[in-house]
Amino acid sequence: MKLAMIGLGKMGINLTENLIRNNNSVVAFDLNEDSKKDAAKLGAEVADSLEDAVVKLDQQKIVWVMLPAGKPTNSTIDQLSQLLNKDDIVIDGGNTFYEDSLRHNEILKANGINFFDAGTSGGMSGANHDGNFMIGGDNAEVFKTIEPIFEGIAQKDGYLYTGKAGSGHYLKMVHNGIEYGMMQSIAEGFDVLEHSDFNYDNEAVAKVWSNGSVIRGWLMELAESAFSKDPQLDELKGVMHSSGEGKWTLDEALKLQVPTPVIALSLMMRYRSMEDDTFTGKVVAALRNEFGGHDVDKK
Amino acid sequence: MKLAMIGLGKMGINLTENLIRNNNSVVAFDLNEDSKKDAAKLGAEVADSLEDAVVKLDQQKIVWVMLPAGKPTNSTIDQLSQLLNKDDIVIDGGNTFYEDSLRHNEILKANGINFFDAGTSGGMSGANHDGNFMIGGDNAEVFKTIEPIFEGIAQKDGYLYTGKAGSGHYLKMVHNGIEYGMMQSIAEGFDVLEHSDFNYDNEAVAKVWSNGSVIRGWLMELAESAFSKDPQLDELKGVMHSSGEGKWTLDEALKLQVPTPVIALSLMMRYRSMEDDTFTGKVVAALRNEFGGHDVDKK
Repeated sequence: MKLAMIGLGKMGINLTENLIRNNNSVVAFDLNEDSKKDAAKLGAEVADSLEDAVVKLDQQKIVWVMLPAGKPTNSTIDQLSQLLNKDDIVIDGGNTFYEDSLRHNEILKANGINFFDAGTSGGMSGANHDGNFMIGGDNAEVFKTIEPIFEGIAQKDGYLYTGKAGSGHYLKMVHNGIEYGMMQSIAEGFDVLEHSDFNYDNEAVAKVWSNGSVIRGWLMELAESAFSKDPQLDELKGVMHSSGEGKWTLDEALKLQVPTPVIALSLMMRYRSMEDDTFTGKVVAALRNEFGGHDVDKK
Repeated sequence: MKLAMIGLGKMGINLTENLIRNNNSVVAFDLNEDSKKDAAKLGAEVADSLEDAVVKLDQQKIVWVMLPAGKPTNSTIDQLSQLLNKDDIVIDGGNTFYEDSLRHNEILKANGINFFDAGTSGGMSGANHDGNFMIGGDNAEVFKTIEPIFEGIAQKDGYLYTGKAGSGHYLKMVHNGIEYGMMQSIAEGFDVLEHSDFNYDNEAVAKVWSNGSVIRGWLMELAESAFSKDPQLDELKGVMHSSGEGKWTLDEALKLQVPTPVIALSLMMRYRSMEDDTFTGKVVAALRNEFGGHDVDKK
């Protein structure tokens, strides 16, 4: 099929390659000129603007938006609601907050445009090959018309139509919340090993755990890969950035009053890692000093 | 090779089948007569007692102990320290606490007997086929003589000699601690989905997450299997038993002063699940009532 890819970052460029390899033709657009050149090398037809990308498509235009969540995605979808026509299709493959996707669905629906929120997992390698997609959208019949796209670029059994609009991004959000907890748990285990009296080879441990153990999985394989390059991760700082989905999962759990202590604490540990020192620490140290005369560490 | 399997429970009987399939001869012993009959059907030579099992072995006797951790394992190893001779080999494949294994190593070593603590992962299916083993033991040269056993019954790259005695069970303990956190995180995610406004098919979700997503792995495949039998797990109570390793991991983290909040809280949530009601809940409810006159739920 022919479709436009808007956004040629780490995910968009890999998806473009995946789509072309699977016999789709791709009209590629990005604000960055180098990214467009990369897409052209992969065989994409390059567009000069969002308008131009839309013009280059056939009837029942299909536009895949693969941009950072928030303003870049939101403003692009606003523009597409004006540029596209009835029965056209917008796929948002980014990590958009599902409430934004619900709003996007309303905006597009008002003009008769079909919207699909396609949560995308599997990292850059998955975007390039055998990816993972959770796709929400109000019209299941229209989904069938674009299903061959996902069938081609996804891992076998690696895409799911999840129901009404918003449900794809919601599922991807929860997927990432789970990911936070799994990663924190794996990391805590290796931290215990690092401090233990035994002398473990982290790479060998991650490798044996990747082959037949209960905790085997892709994250453990990635740990093996990371330790193979830097056995004690000496080159890194333990600063854990986050890009929203963990917080949204927790926001949602709070809204629904679902106890999710592990996901919550995984997020808090990420926030803790962003600070060299904490005010919490100062307050506790000060109180111990006040009531018990306990020593404090002074600057 | 020829070896004795002491303990023919869920793990021991599957290991017996795995060992025999991989061209080992097994002398099998259990207190339970039916288990011995099962082992005989698999081709094992059955022993009448621990003493008889030892007698039936060749020179440089190899005894694999596969019993519940604690008293059953400890007393068996005590007996083996008397029944075996210099250069014989004891493998403890159970979930023994590593400090017990250190003691077992000393007891056996005093009589010249080689001890290996072999943490075993992969569940019953892994015990039966393509298992996972983390093996500690002071003598790396002696390990080489029993290595073909593990090579046969383990998944490719699924066994690791981890160094001195105790290091195998220690690694398995931490593996299980990680498992607690991963399982709790996966479960919390599905709990959010269950409470959400969307209508997800848990089995389909676990399936799509098992194929190409970042959080793919065996635990997610097991979730798919569980949901395929009981889509909302209506037949179960959410009581989470535990058999020690999570607590030991936390004990160790406390000893080493390593912050492991996710593993800690996963354990606490298991304890919480064991109680229909909590005294904590009563105390908090009573205090809210005392200071603010807030309603309490009375029995």
